[in-house]
Amino acid sequence: MKTEHNITEMMQKMGKAAQAAAQNLANISGAQKNAALAAAARQLRDNKDKILSANAQDMAQAQARDIAGAMLDRLMLNEQRVEDIAASLEAIAELPDPIGDVIAQWDRPNGLNISRVRVPLGVIGIIYESRPNVTADAGALCLKSGNAAILRGGSESALSNRAIHECLVQGLVLAGLNPDCIQLIPTQDRAAVGELLGLVGYVDIIVPRGGKSLIKRVQDDSRVPVMAHLDGICHVYVDKDADLEKAIAITLNAKMRRTGICGAAETLLIDHAVLGSHLPAIADALKAAGCELRGDAAVRAIDPAILLASEADWTTEYLDAILAIKSVDGVSGAIQHIAAHGSHHTDCIITENAQTAEKFLSLVDSAIVLHNASTQYADGGEFGMGAEIGISTGKMHARGPVGLEQLTSYKYQVRGNGQIRP
Amino acid sequence: MKTEHNITEMMQKMGKAAQAAAQNLANISGAQKNAALAAAARQLRDNKDKILSANAQDMAQAQARDIAGAMLDRLMLNEQRVEDIAASLEAIAELPDPIGDVIAQWDRPNGLNISRVRVPLGVIGIIYESRPNVTADAGALCLKSGNAAILRGGSESALSNRAIHECLVQGLVLAGLNPDCIQLIPTQDRAAVGELLGLVGYVDIIVPRGGKSLIKRVQDDSRVPVMAHLDGICHVYVDKDADLEKAIAITLNAKMRRTGICGAAETLLIDHAVLGSHLPAIADALKAAGCELRGDAAVRAIDPAILLASEADWTTEYLDAILAIKSVDGVSGAIQHIAAHGSHHTDCIITENAQTAEKFLSLVDSAIVLHNASTQYADGGEFGMGAEIGISTGKMHARGPVGLEQLTSYKYQVRGNGQIRP
Repeated sequence: MKTEHNITEMMQKMGKAAQAAAQNLANISGAQKNAALAAAARQLRDNKDKILSANAQDMAQAQARDIAGAMLDRLMLNEQRVEDIAASLEAIAELPDPIGDVIAQWDRPNGLNISRVRVPLGVIGIIYESRPNVTADAGALCLKSGNAAILRGGSESALSNRAIHECLVQGLVLAGLNPDCIQLIPTQDRAAVGELLGLVGYVDIIVPRGGKSLIKRVQDDSRVPVMAHLDGICHVYVDKDADLEKAIAITLNAKMRRTGICGAAETLLIDHAVLGSHLPAIADALKAAGCELRGDAAVRAIDPAILLASEADWTTEYLDAILAIKSVDGVSGAIQHIAAHGSHHTDCIITENAQTAEKFLSLVDSAIVLHNASTQYADGGEFGMGAEIGISTGKMHARGPVGLEQLTSYKYQVRGNGQIRP
Repeated sequence: MKTEHNITEMMQKMGKAAQAAAQNLANISGAQKNAALAAAARQLRDNKDKILSANAQDMAQAQARDIAGAMLDRLMLNEQRVEDIAASLEAIAELPDPIGDVIAQWDRPNGLNISRVRVPLGVIGIIYESRPNVTADAGALCLKSGNAAILRGGSESALSNRAIHECLVQGLVLAGLNPDCIQLIPTQDRAAVGELLGLVGYVDIIVPRGGKSLIKRVQDDSRVPVMAHLDGICHVYVDKDADLEKAIAITLNAKMRRTGICGAAETLLIDHAVLGSHLPAIADALKAAGCELRGDAAVRAIDPAILLASEADWTTEYLDAILAIKSVDGVSGAIQHIAAHGSHHTDCIITENAQTAEKFLSLVDSAIVLHNASTQYADGGEFGMGAEIGISTGKMHARGPVGLEQLTSYKYQVRGNGQIRP
């Protein structure tokens, strides 16, 4: 039986092992890390049946517990999905290795040469919900960026995670790396999460991946720094100088391409000067796509079929086919509304007026601001950064998509020939 | 009378005011910020007598309370020191403005143009001990980097801080800026610090400046992210291929130039291969400069006059004229000792062997690693970064000297022409 005491000890041991692994991993060649990823991909393919059978057990238990459909879909693996997971390890291996990059280099008048060199963060704790693919993705991103990982997945996917994790560990061992580079917490006891969040000195950063309540809990409880994104209350603002065709296409895509992702638009702001000319066509396109609309009084004066929005609608992340629509007083009104109600994630302006666009891009304080492009581009892959571990809405360390580079720190190397400070 | 309740309200109000000021400040021109700094410098000179009289009162109270000499010296102002403070504001105005810098820019195959643009962090809370010059320096660095500041100085310097802060506020007002850009907490009640550390949503980052106990307390209690440096247990390693003259000069400088700064060396490691040939001359130079030496058994076998070091000496930041000396087994032994006992701040190798130097620079996991140069170069000014607010020993966000650039975040501006995500 696991007692609290045993879990504390176990997590301390995992923390120490991760730190020891990280110290070596910081100086491992890119080739060796890539070899481990390639070997892990092969292991995943070779152990496909074992993984699918573990996943079938997870699925059966989840179904017995009446778990909702969307969650079941995220939990479910099939041959194609296992192949996708293996391929994504290979894709991460293909990305350039950030470690050792000289970010900047300069000489001082006294002859000292200073370089700023990219190094790993150290040990990353990743807490995620029941998506087995995250086990592989997160472990691989940490390894490639020279960090040791301690993974803690959702309990519904425990057996799937374990099967995938075994393949990662085999990959490490086959490449001659320390298996502790990627550890998976073996118990589903919640006390283990509490211990992980308190491993100051062993764990350098915690990355929670999942819904708002998970992230909030981690942020509230963690004594280790947390890199996370909270809400994605993303806005599309249709300016008076907007091209109507672009406004329709971008709004529809920003809201409806995928409604459940953090870059999906939740509020449409329209300059009241073009409410009459632009709203109807945009609203028709959204309705035809099955989107529920909730508007303020001015919006409803144009289209009474639109439901009345309440104050809460301006700060709700629906993650669903619902859009709040508000009439605003020009770009300044849009900027004000976003400052008051937004979540500093991703916001977009649609306008043909370059000056208005630049004002919006400067004054909206969000991780990502776009001109005439869909908010659904808020994604590390779409930015050309390769895989991402999430989107950070904080301003410390990394902001926006968190790829390999954002999982690193740096150090200063100073080369002299006997300089002493006067 | 201030009640707890009043302080909570007051700090909430200060947080809101700072946030509002920061929203404007993020888009203020460099010229206007510089005008405020220049005006504040003039105010400091014009109000010199007022500042000195406030400081005289602080000094009298501190002396009555038997405050130690070193602290009194840090607290004390005179005409020259006030002039230095004014000049340092002008020097900060001269630094390049980091805000708006395009850090990177690239095009995507779909035609999107992405730029990563430097923006302020927002609101910075600075908690410091009784050094009145920090009021001006910290306020100015925050302003120049586009951040609003909430300052909380040590109680011994309360009147001096207030007098200096008034000059900063006058400078802001004369330049047409919001006086809330730089606020000073008006009470010395400790509850105000607790409230400041809990202002999540208003304060973006806390920077503690002072001794270990202050920083520890802030790190333990803060719910806002903290950027801080803890210990500076800095090492000088004298390799078997060290040039003896360099070894003497650098060790002496690293330890004795100023013993009270975080970049001062605390431990000397010597390759046992050159203990006999190199130790005596280095030890003599240190002793002649008034440094107490504590060595391990091998060191004492060469020089029995050296005191015996205890285990605790390897992890003590003396900040005084004391040096621990240990014999190690080559560069690998030095790296191991530093990994086990160091504080990831600043470490130096003295060697004429380039390969050995590169091994040390790669494998020692510290913010600053030096080859043949004194650890006392661990300073933003010496790095050419202009003024610094401290040295960060954490790996998140900034590592090493924290200058203007390290007080910023970034955002992504994406320019399109109607792109929607497939």
